[in-house]
Amino acid sequence: MNFDKEFTSAILIIGNEILSGRTVDKNTSFIAKWLGDLGIGVEEVRVIPDKEEIIVESVNSLRKKYQYIFTTGGIGPTHDDITSESVAKAFGKKYEYNQEAYSILEKYYAKSDFNEGRKKMAKMPEGANLIYNEHGSAPAFYIENVFVLPGIPSYVELMLPQLKDVIVSGKKIISLTCDARVRESSIALDLSVIQNRYPEIDIGSYPYSKEGGFGTMLVMRSTDQEKITKCHSEVEQMVKKYTLK
Amino acid sequence: MNFDKEFTSAILIIGNEILSGRTVDKNTSFIAKWLGDLGIGVEEVRVIPDKEEIIVESVNSLRKKYQYIFTTGGIGPTHDDITSESVAKAFGKKYEYNQEAYSILEKYYAKSDFNEGRKKMAKMPEGANLIYNEHGSAPAFYIENVFVLPGIPSYVELMLPQLKDVIVSGKKIISLTCDARVRESSIALDLSVIQNRYPEIDIGSYPYSKEGGFGTMLVMRSTDQEKITKCHSEVEQMVKKYTLK
Repeated sequence: MNFDKEFTSAILIIGNEILSGRTVDKNTSFIAKWLGDLGIGVEEVRVIPDKEEIIVESVNSLRKKYQYIFTTGGIGPTHDDITSESVAKAFGKKYEYNQEAYSILEKYYAKSDFNEGRKKMAKMPEGANLIYNEHGSAPAFYIENVFVLPGIPSYVELMLPQLKDVIVSGKKIISLTCDARVRESSIALDLSVIQNRYPEIDIGSYPYSKEGGFGTMLVMRSTDQEKITKCHSEVEQMVKKYTLK
Repeated sequence: MNFDKEFTSAILIIGNEILSGRTVDKNTSFIAKWLGDLGIGVEEVRVIPDKEEIIVESVNSLRKKYQYIFTTGGIGPTHDDITSESVAKAFGKKYEYNQEAYSILEKYYAKSDFNEGRKKMAKMPEGANLIYNEHGSAPAFYIENVFVLPGIPSYVELMLPQLKDVIVSGKKIISLTCDARVRESSIALDLSVIQNRYPEIDIGSYPYSKEGGFGTMLVMRSTDQEKITKCHSEVEQMVKKYTLK
């Protein structure tokens, strides 16, 4: 969304369950909000299947284009978990046991339960940095600018805060809203006049219907506190004209 | 997901509100399930901002790669609704009033209320085919293999069924599940043996935790009724070994 060309990111959701429609992806929303607070805009999200050549191609094209890439999914113990191996291939690195990850998993599981699937979760690209899982089980990892996270939303939420010191932040993206109890088509013209006056503010208009009535949520986003405050008060003034009718 | 090379699709979610994390995208799940019933697999989803050059580039690259493209978002009355104009550019077509759409909107709004924003919703690429909105307001449209839908999920759900006769269907994608009350890492090896025996079945393994216990939802997908039934019963037999312990 172009807040700062230096602080851009993309999210790569890896998993057939999203493409089939079985699962609604919640990770994008959580990761994007977290990044917004760090001043990093998400420019693109891709959802792709668990297929090696597609993962390799996507990781490689995105990591060159954006400052940070976050992947979710495909780092578990089963046959369809091929993200770690694919990321290793994308970087041309060995896919091998990470000794620290292996030790964590070895402690977590009873000796007789530490089977091949569980050991597989310790395999990562050579030189990967661990992202710990407080639950004591399988860690995730990052390599260069690619952060490889699990698919389970509660794990993603646990893991992201650890990355605060790893990621170089921009200016926090401020978001202000104005809930207009009026149809968006009524205010469209006036809103575009304000948008033209504030080209650096990203103004979004999202219609909704609630309790039988129509309304529009107007969302302003920017890293500039002063300008967004001004813009927001102009939007509120404009909306008043329609709602006082 | 490669069920049938001839029946592939991609979904293009257009909207800053998804990229900012403010809104969780629900359209992908609905569209993908609807397409699955028609035997059309979704191979890729992209979420992109409301930026003309990105919309044009994405529509053009996806429409050549897949049989059907579904876009959502950006066809409303406000300044940030630029999907229709961008799709016209992608096809090198004029962006002009669709007479039928104009008449529908003219009837819907009182004369004094039919403002520029509302008229804009009747502008489409030359030669667009309408997708009607039962609510009597702004229609969506399709041109060649690109279906341009609104962002509001309830409108998408109303509009999709109209397309049943437009889309050439494949064999319905059948989905069978087995709810295994066991950690996925316990069954990983046995599951991969079954997957190797049924390469044409897409077997997904999705861990969950519920009521303090761990479980794994195993999802099989295929267009082959006989093989998926066999595969499903093998998976159920295998799971029993672990849950009866």
